[in-house]
Amino acid sequence: MQPEELIQGICDGKLRALAKAITLIESQRPEDQQATASILEAVLPRTGSSLRIGISGVPGAGKSTFIEAFGMYLLQQGKRVAVLAVDPSSQLSGGSILGDKTRMEELSRQECAFIRPSPSGETLGGVARKTRESMLLCEAYGFDVIIVETVGVGQSETAVASMVDFFLLLQLPGAGDELQGIKKGVMEIADGIVVNKADGDNVERARLAARQMENALHIMTPKSPSWTVPVELVSALHKSGMDLVWQMLQDYLEAMRASGEFEQKRKNQAVDWMWSTVMDNLKYAFSTHPKVAAALPELQRSVAEGVTTPGIAARKLLEVFRRPM
Amino acid sequence: MQPEELIQGICDGKLRALAKAITLIESQRPEDQQATASILEAVLPRTGSSLRIGISGVPGAGKSTFIEAFGMYLLQQGKRVAVLAVDPSSQLSGGSILGDKTRMEELSRQECAFIRPSPSGETLGGVARKTRESMLLCEAYGFDVIIVETVGVGQSETAVASMVDFFLLLQLPGAGDELQGIKKGVMEIADGIVVNKADGDNVERARLAARQMENALHIMTPKSPSWTVPVELVSALHKSGMDLVWQMLQDYLEAMRASGEFEQKRKNQAVDWMWSTVMDNLKYAFSTHPKVAAALPELQRSVAEGVTTPGIAARKLLEVFRRPM
Repeated sequence: MQPEELIQGICDGKLRALAKAITLIESQRPEDQQATASILEAVLPRTGSSLRIGISGVPGAGKSTFIEAFGMYLLQQGKRVAVLAVDPSSQLSGGSILGDKTRMEELSRQECAFIRPSPSGETLGGVARKTRESMLLCEAYGFDVIIVETVGVGQSETAVASMVDFFLLLQLPGAGDELQGIKKGVMEIADGIVVNKADGDNVERARLAARQMENALHIMTPKSPSWTVPVELVSALHKSGMDLVWQMLQDYLEAMRASGEFEQKRKNQAVDWMWSTVMDNLKYAFSTHPKVAAALPELQRSVAEGVTTPGIAARKLLEVFRRPM
Repeated sequence: MQPEELIQGICDGKLRALAKAITLIESQRPEDQQATASILEAVLPRTGSSLRIGISGVPGAGKSTFIEAFGMYLLQQGKRVAVLAVDPSSQLSGGSILGDKTRMEELSRQECAFIRPSPSGETLGGVARKTRESMLLCEAYGFDVIIVETVGVGQSETAVASMVDFFLLLQLPGAGDELQGIKKGVMEIADGIVVNKADGDNVERARLAARQMENALHIMTPKSPSWTVPVELVSALHKSGMDLVWQMLQDYLEAMRASGEFEQKRKNQAVDWMWSTVMDNLKYAFSTHPKVAAALPELQRSVAEGVTTPGIAARKLLEVFRRPM
């Protein structure tokens, strides 16, 4: 299909066109990048009205069960839901999240839901870019809510938080050692926390975990002066508490829209994205410059061994980079 | 003085030569940069054996009183101590930390101590580079302990943590609201925490703060598998608890050296520094490129308003940058 057909198909709500356009975004071929750019530019005016939600949590927190339960709840509210994923490990592992649609069997069978596994890519930057662009296509298509799941490898939470309106952290019942899985800085980027598996014998432990989260949140600087991060208990398995999560989101949106932070955050995210794309490209051009690439291993070793100062090594590399070839 | 004289002076333990060489590092003049590079390269073999400590804390935590008390304690142990600072706001405020030596009156009068205010610089990157390089000169001169103070503006803690062996966070007695001053991610980069002003009526509140810190630390992933971040109570005013802080440092060094993490951390810091210098330079070259600078405001506005995608804007800027002028 030509870009024009794909654009028309997306605007007409043809799921096949959306899927094909996302495949184009995920392509590594240079000629596809031109087509991608023209599609994105064409659909851009139709984007921006969906709610963008990021979801993370340690392995075992029940992310896919939660997304399935929450997704079904949203469909019942008349919302159309797209689920994307950012998993920078997917190239190695063959896709550890959303790779297998049977993980969200019920949701994947629904007409108003769209589930897409993580794009692959050598770098988190590449995976994040593809997901951001796919998100725009899903918005143009008409999905009301876009959920972006992350496995939480390396900096993937930060990458996802920088592309969504609301970042939800899924936690497990229990406290202390069981919660050691909370990564540095992840609590700080959460806009809301949900303790999952708060069912049966777990309820007391879930309450304990919630209290401990609240204590920890209490001594951190709030992300926004207009919002106190709430902690809710849910059971994705029993599909209970989904209304609490939806209410949490509504409250958040209301507070952020009233203070003007919603709009401002989206603007900042777009400008930051532009800059990170520029810097990624510059770094790539630098590292793959033949003379830089030739000098780099030796200089990097000298710096690590303390034979050359980092500043002097950087200057040498920059001189090599700037010299006409 | 010529670079050769400064090098000789630093190696001979002449304080005037050290101060002059640091002034050269802080200079904005391009011709001084060449001299700086040759001095750094010459003294590099004499660096690396000092202990590098970063110290941060909210305004009012008593940083200068603590550094004075701890510095005097170190001198009593026969250590020579240099105190540097990273304060990216110093250009605007005329130097808010260490600008006034009377703040550490006793320490500044000691022969084996050297106190230098924050270099000024337009960017945190510039200030951090100058402090790192000054640190190397202080090491070559023969200081055993280098203390780098930070005001905690913006990302300055992260910058300081990336240049020291041990990052100490100074806290105040009390809990809850009073501790709201803890910035996002700062707890996570601390290798040790000290609750200052644990004297008189404050002792109980200091204990409460320490317990709350320990609880918060408990649910965070440790920075190192070989180290549990300790929380100690001190009173810098009464010069009490300085032995506890020094013991904390000794324990840390022993654990990190035994696991090989000490060596590895220094190597990683040096390589990261080289890369951040490269990236800062590339970003500067990019932003100040006449055609990029001309196109940037309009493209940045289009991106913020959602008229252009960040990816397309980045590509346009990169094309302009790469095109021969």
